[in-house]
Amino acid sequence: MAGDINKNGWLRIVGLGPGADALITPEVSAVLSAATDVVGYVPYVDRVAPRPGLVRHGSDNREEIRRAEQALQLTADGCRVVVVSSGDPGVFAMAAALFEALEKAGPEWRSLDIQVLPGISAMLAASARLGAPLGHDFCCINLSDNLKPWGVIERRLRLAAEADFAMAFYNPRSRARPEGFARALELLRQACGPQRLIAFARAVSTPEESILVTTLGEAEPEMADMRTLVMVGSSQTRRIECPAGPWVYTPRSAS
Amino acid sequence: MAGDINKNGWLRIVGLGPGADALITPEVSAVLSAATDVVGYVPYVDRVAPRPGLVRHGSDNREEIRRAEQALQLTADGCRVVVVSSGDPGVFAMAAALFEALEKAGPEWRSLDIQVLPGISAMLAASARLGAPLGHDFCCINLSDNLKPWGVIERRLRLAAEADFAMAFYNPRSRARPEGFARALELLRQACGPQRLIAFARAVSTPEESILVTTLGEAEPEMADMRTLVMVGSSQTRRIECPAGPWVYTPRSAS
Repeated sequence: MAGDINKNGWLRIVGLGPGADALITPEVSAVLSAATDVVGYVPYVDRVAPRPGLVRHGSDNREEIRRAEQALQLTADGCRVVVVSSGDPGVFAMAAALFEALEKAGPEWRSLDIQVLPGISAMLAASARLGAPLGHDFCCINLSDNLKPWGVIERRLRLAAEADFAMAFYNPRSRARPEGFARALELLRQACGPQRLIAFARAVSTPEESILVTTLGEAEPEMADMRTLVMVGSSQTRRIECPAGPWVYTPRSAS
Repeated sequence: MAGDINKNGWLRIVGLGPGADALITPEVSAVLSAATDVVGYVPYVDRVAPRPGLVRHGSDNREEIRRAEQALQLTADGCRVVVVSSGDPGVFAMAAALFEALEKAGPEWRSLDIQVLPGISAMLAASARLGAPLGHDFCCINLSDNLKPWGVIERRLRLAAEADFAMAFYNPRSRARPEGFARALELLRQACGPQRLIAFARAVSTPEESILVTTLGEAEPEMADMRTLVMVGSSQTRRIECPAGPWVYTPRSAS
């Protein structure tokens, strides 16, 4: 990247929430209205309505660093740029990629006007639909081994089980890596026992939403795809049967 | 709790976000407009503007179960009830208390119309202000020992450090328990070394907001109070110096 910095530009790295417009914060809606350029993965850019004066730059998955460099360059050119992620931009999304690109880009780029604006993460949206599975201490792990060795994932799963955290898993399963999630389920069954609660929250707040609550003993790898947020309870997590479906919650106290 | 269930009532357990109105989701604003009763801890109820037809029931801290029972009773009486928490209702807030009360209340209460509506958590708001400290696997721990033994907290801190999670801490320090956070810092210094990044994000998105980024070696317990969200980086978390202050981010990859 090169060139003079046009001080009129700004960059906002925002979260669009899990899908429903009613979950987009007014802060994010305001910067989308003021933007000249929206940058992101195609399906997320498609969530921003076209209008005169707005250029939408959709790019492919796994293009995060190139996309971040493009956003920095547009900002340096004086554009008002919004980088969109689903959910929250800081949770396995574009904010980290943007700062990786900024750090590599050299000191003259560090005067750019940059802000990160939070969004409702898939984890929080899934938690709300289920009840309160994250009502006590928890952890959040990306199960994709695109950017880390599978051994690191297994080690974290073991330690998370030992710590008795409730667990939220992003990117449990893709067509390219169908076997990892089966191994994760087997490891968790061994570590937590077959009665431990697990929930599959798919595409929460969209028309494709589906929720499934079961146990590690009954869970099948096919219950998850890349649009599923998987939650495994702690040893204290409970299920309340109700006419409209079960609630899942983790009590506030632990002994 | 007792009495017939009036089917006109509904209960929404919502998050008001960290403080700024621009971080309240439209979904939450809509139920607040339709409510007859708002129930919560006094400073959160005070964030909902008074209007004719709305009764605001503010209660004291540490009254969570009694407050949850009150909300269930109002709902059963046919009121349109919103239970408000700061941040997200599912993260160390009212949703877990509500389901604890619902489970104890007996089967006839389980037909109540209940929904949980997510909010921008203090953790996500702090993360956005800092950059992207949660860009890789992380955990979230409540450092208050009101509802769990201190030994459980220390054990989780040790395992979280061993897993190399970034860490977000709620309720680091209160006047009633000033010594716990000093012990947590000492444990983390031993486990992670003095160069590990730590950030103190206080009252994010309010007029009292303050941000401090330092290292475990330089951190002092007095840098936190009950309005501070504390974040400790993983071994990979980095700091970018910029004219407007440092960015803190955790790269997406791990080896």
